[in-house]
Amino acid sequence: MLKALIVGASGYAGAELARYLSRHPEVEISALTVSEKSADAGKLISDYDLHPQLKGIVDLPLIGTSNYDDLITDIDIVFLATEHSVSHDIAPYFLKHGCTVFDLSGAFRVNQKAFYTDYYGFTHAHNHWLDKAAYGLAEWNQEQIKTAQLIAVPGCYPTAAQLALKPIIEEELLNTSQWPVINAVSGVSGAGRKASLRNSFCEVSLHAYGLFTHRHQPEIVAHLGQDVIFTPHLGSFKQGIHATITCRIKAGITQEAVLAAFNKYYEDKPLVRVYQKDWPSLKSVIGLPFCDIGFKVNGEHLIIIAVEDNLLKGAAAQAVQCMNIRFGFNETTSLL
Amino acid sequence: MLKALIVGASGYAGAELARYLSRHPEVEISALTVSEKSADAGKLISDYDLHPQLKGIVDLPLIGTSNYDDLITDIDIVFLATEHSVSHDIAPYFLKHGCTVFDLSGAFRVNQKAFYTDYYGFTHAHNHWLDKAAYGLAEWNQEQIKTAQLIAVPGCYPTAAQLALKPIIEEELLNTSQWPVINAVSGVSGAGRKASLRNSFCEVSLHAYGLFTHRHQPEIVAHLGQDVIFTPHLGSFKQGIHATITCRIKAGITQEAVLAAFNKYYEDKPLVRVYQKDWPSLKSVIGLPFCDIGFKVNGEHLIIIAVEDNLLKGAAAQAVQCMNIRFGFNETTSLL
Amino acid sequence: MLKALIVGASGYAGAELARYLSRHPEVEISALTVSEKSADAGKLISDYDLHPQLKGIVDLPLIGTSNYDDLITDIDIVFLATEHSVSHDIAPYFLKHGCTVFDLSGAFRVNQKAFYTDYYGFTHAHNHWLDKAAYGLAEWNQEQIKTAQLIAVPGCYPTAAQLALKPIIEEELLNTSQWPVINAVSGVSGAGRKASLRNSFCEVSLHAYGLFTHRHQPEIVAHLGQDVIFTPHLGSFKQGIHATITCRIKAGITQEAVLAAFNKYYEDKPLVRVYQKDWPSLKSVIGLPFCDIGFKVNGEHLIIIAVEDNLLKGAAAQAVQCMNIRFGFNETTSLL
Amino acid sequence: MLKALIVGASGYAGAELARYLSRHPEVEISALTVSEKSADAGKLISDYDLHPQLKGIVDLPLIGTSNYDDLITDIDIVFLATEHSVSHDIAPYFLKHGCTVFDLSGAFRVNQKAFYTDYYGFTHAHNHWLDKAAYGLAEWNQEQIKTAQLIAVPGCYPTAAQLALKPIIEEELLNTSQWPVINAVSGVSGAGRKASLRNSFCEVSLHAYGLFTHRHQPEIVAHLGQDVIFTPHLGSFKQGIHATITCRIKAGITQEAVLAAFNKYYEDKPLVRVYQKDWPSLKSVIGLPFCDIGFKVNGEHLIIIAVEDNLLKGAAAQAVQCMNIRFGFNETTSLL
Repeated sequence: MLKALIVGASGYAGAELARYLSRHPEVEISALTVSEKSADAGKLISDYDLHPQLKGIVDLPLIGTSNYDDLITDIDIVFLATEHSVSHDIAPYFLKHGCTVFDLSGAFRVNQKAFYTDYYGFTHAHNHWLDKAAYGLAEWNQEQIKTAQLIAVPGCYPTAAQLALKPIIEEELLNTSQWPVINAVSGVSGAGRKASLRNSFCEVSLHAYGLFTHRHQPEIVAHLGQDVIFTPHLGSFKQGIHATITCRIKAGITQEAVLAAFNKYYEDKPLVRVYQKDWPSLKSVIGLPFCDIGFKVNGEHLIIIAVEDNLLKGAAAQAVQCMNIRFGFNETTSLL
Repeated sequence: MLKALIVGASGYAGAELARYLSRHPEVEISALTVSEKSADAGKLISDYDLHPQLKGIVDLPLIGTSNYDDLITDIDIVFLATEHSVSHDIAPYFLKHGCTVFDLSGAFRVNQKAFYTDYYGFTHAHNHWLDKAAYGLAEWNQEQIKTAQLIAVPGCYPTAAQLALKPIIEEELLNTSQWPVINAVSGVSGAGRKASLRNSFCEVSLHAYGLFTHRHQPEIVAHLGQDVIFTPHLGSFKQGIHATITCRIKAGITQEAVLAAFNKYYEDKPLVRVYQKDWPSLKSVIGLPFCDIGFKVNGEHLIIIAVEDNLLKGAAAQAVQCMNIRFGFNETTSLL
Repeated sequence: MLKALIVGASGYAGAELARYLSRHPEVEISALTVSEKSADAGKLISDYDLHPQLKGIVDLPLIGTSNYDDLITDIDIVFLATEHSVSHDIAPYFLKHGCTVFDLSGAFRVNQKAFYTDYYGFTHAHNHWLDKAAYGLAEWNQEQIKTAQLIAVPGCYPTAAQLALKPIIEEELLNTSQWPVINAVSGVSGAGRKASLRNSFCEVSLHAYGLFTHRHQPEIVAHLGQDVIFTPHLGSFKQGIHATITCRIKAGITQEAVLAAFNKYYEDKPLVRVYQKDWPSLKSVIGLPFCDIGFKVNGEHLIIIAVEDNLLKGAAAQAVQCMNIRFGFNETTSLL
Repeated sequence: MLKALIVGASGYAGAELARYLSRHPEVEISALTVSEKSADAGKLISDYDLHPQLKGIVDLPLIGTSNYDDLITDIDIVFLATEHSVSHDIAPYFLKHGCTVFDLSGAFRVNQKAFYTDYYGFTHAHNHWLDKAAYGLAEWNQEQIKTAQLIAVPGCYPTAAQLALKPIIEEELLNTSQWPVINAVSGVSGAGRKASLRNSFCEVSLHAYGLFTHRHQPEIVAHLGQDVIFTPHLGSFKQGIHATITCRIKAGITQEAVLAAFNKYYEDKPLVRVYQKDWPSLKSVIGLPFCDIGFKVNGEHLIIIAVEDNLLKGAAAQAVQCMNIRFGFNETTSLL
């Protein structure tokens, strides 16, 4: 049994990771930790004030610590469900001790130092690991993931956007003179588990935010190699992302050609479900590890709809999927 | 035109008050204030971060102050939409200056000093005003309201509970040997406009709270003169209260007798709507100043359903209704 | 007092119309009608099974009829809140009798006969009235509305889309070589008040529909004179439309230039609120007659956000606004 | 491998059953059926219009039939997720062929013939099976379930109500002179998967229904042996039941005594989670097979809060739990 540590286990993605790992036949949870300053330190993860749904499923304590010397001998795998700068600071420690690290933060996703200064507000100090990190877009980077020691799991919006656009770009169907327009609506859990007036129940309402400035835009661009316009929205629901992507395609590209492109890359991928007709609803993926994709061609325009659970395929499930790929388990073990 | 001040205008009830007063033909808003420490001080009430729905309707600034000496000469009426202890401290100032005060907090609702120590955590220092205050349950205390200088507007739960139970008690239909069971579900706005993890979008879910200990229980008991079991719940909606009240009635009391009791007290009351059949849904009163009441008799048991918008009939609308009664305006002016 | 008839008053827009007209100082409701086959015929509009929120506000019966000979002498104004083909069939009757007709259906919105065959499934038989109808986009067509006898009130999506795009097009800021991408999310009430599995509570979930084929696309194009890509979505909320419009603008157009364009057309328009910064949330307009607009320029790209209540500015409120304009009342009478 | 048939697999409980059985290591699904008149006949259960979340998980067709002669040789276990009268009519066929039947309808829950005439509108014709049926309240009737051929799985409300009250009654803590007051709020899925105006998205709103007349009241009374007042409510959420139960207890019964009663019966039961403090929220059980129970004593009054997912512990999960018990599998196999 591999022994796994979840750092930042008090958040929504952390709780989902704990649930998946608790039922994984090849992995056991060594420890769950939170910052020693956290009010949650010392509580069970299934505490009434935390994730009571886990009561009887995972009843481990959240250890409050930033020193892992006592735990490190008992850890093979680390999941970092932490703030970006915390992941940045702490990942090298685990890597040096030989652990395989799955980072759910943005700290190692883009191999451009300026990206972190511009979008995350810190100076990246770990060039070596930036170079070595595999980008954990599981359906696309299996070879790198299989051998990497550090896997940077993509953000929730970039996962949906890239799974939708990569087949079109790879197959050179896109008319690249026009930037694809990505409109995406995320559930409130994307903002994390913390009190803020903005995410207060009475204040949440469908609205756009971060126009032209959201840090997931350059993450998408870096990995697609294609400029895009990305407009995130907050929706009045807890979990899920619904992305509507409008793009210009080359003349003569048919509905069938686009379907063939999606099938080429996803036919044998268990966690991407391509719709031959109809367009997926958010409800199809809530609580499930899938990304569902539908689309329609009209003349030189193509609209792609991609939906996923932001906490699962957009975070915890994809991290576990990467772990399964990395260690040679069945890709969907513990996910379905 | 009467000149009105709203203290604590940044909250949800404050915004509703501002909207009502802005369209009242006999009243104009002199000023809106918030604590000088508030991050909202200086902003317009219709600011993007506050109540943008009011843009173009009420665009007054929120003055940050706790000193009203400069404003006092221009004020006839004061609405206190503040914390209980703030209302307690500040109401006497306005009363001494001759203003008529409508207090939406709990500071003057129950004429028992111990009540404040036990349930609100402060020692009441204004016996004189406790004695003088009219309890603003508008359908029941019109005579006192007409002559009072201080009107203590009831809490949201007590308004629904008392409007439902008072006709039964007044007409002596109740079998008082069993305490009525009041189960009520409130929208999240009842907790006020502030960030807290408990009221965070992702955390809210139907649940009971404050079993046997909520401070609205003794408020209800004090004014009904009847012990009750009151169990509040939080529901996943912004506005509204739905109360289900189960009680034992005397043998032989019929459906018709109960209807007659409700009609006796409410037939000429424009803001209480009694259903002859069916039981009201929450949607019937959201955004409206009504309390809707339905009921059913079965043997010696009676169930009463009462619904209202907690921010309106449970707060701002009832305060304006009290003002209308106090100054001889039509009871529903600006409310419908 | 002008006397108004609402045909199709049992629906959501009909109920909103009834509420507005009931408080309008210059208009009184003559009658409310529904199809004689409707199960609602004979009930009060405020009946428990219809719109109980109107109890005590509008308690008129829904007359079941398709023959208006007995009512016609008592009608100056007609609001048609009916199916498209019903409006098409019945509008000429009222027009011939000299009534002014405000049609909330699609029957007279586009002066192209093929449009009705292609998108509404009926052959248009009233060329004369198609020619004469004013398109009731209230902020743009005031002169035509003032003198028209038939006003075709725009659909909910087209109102938001056109209010957002017309200033940009009129001021020639748009790079017309790329079609604006309109992504809009509508509340479920846009589908009308009728039982269907698709609109069943448990089935509703954010999803796109009608890709490239929705009939509001040609309505928008006809009135804008500009091709667009319009993608409607259903959201998990009752009322409201949130539109995100991404377009290419000419080089050198600044944020200030776009603001100037919006201000030029809307500064004196009480029901369009332009945001200088921030982008409107749906909550700002729910229950209110406004369309709120925000935007952001980035290089040659412009994103415009427009929100409205689909039942109000997207239907009933705009119809009443048109009536106010038509009869010389204050534009916002009874709306605020 | 046991071979299972799900009759009525197109509904919400049917879909949950299919999901559970598809991952059960000891069971395989033989067939899914619906009425031959159903519009869903012939579609895959994971069809876009049915349960697209199951795509890739269970992609079996819904066979439209009411004749099981061709299927019967391949069936060991039958789950009836059908209308009450359909279950009543068809269950004996499967029983005669030696199948073990888990009936999720009300057709065999109460061994009183009048119950079916009064509350379900049909005359019960199968006395023999009424006598033989085990009531599938899994935590309480394990011995009967283990040997029964027909297990009548309790309704969703009765499961929550009985799990909450039975320990109190068994331990004789209740003051039976006052009837416990059960207020319960159910998600809309409790009404099944079918179009109705009442369950239309725009119409749903928190309200009580069926006061004193709901058929789950006599089911609860029959199995508790104690009269109760049961008031069901519809809430604005898809899944879940929240029950608040207020009862009179004997003098001197403490919080500890009540906890001891719950622990006595549930300490070793994996699917009932008793809270020592705090009261469960609905969110704790959504998507999970648990019933969570909290409570508080005050003098001679006791309030118990019980929550469950109406489709899971209130239907599909309890049916599978009964199957696990019946065939000697681990009680939670495939459920967690």
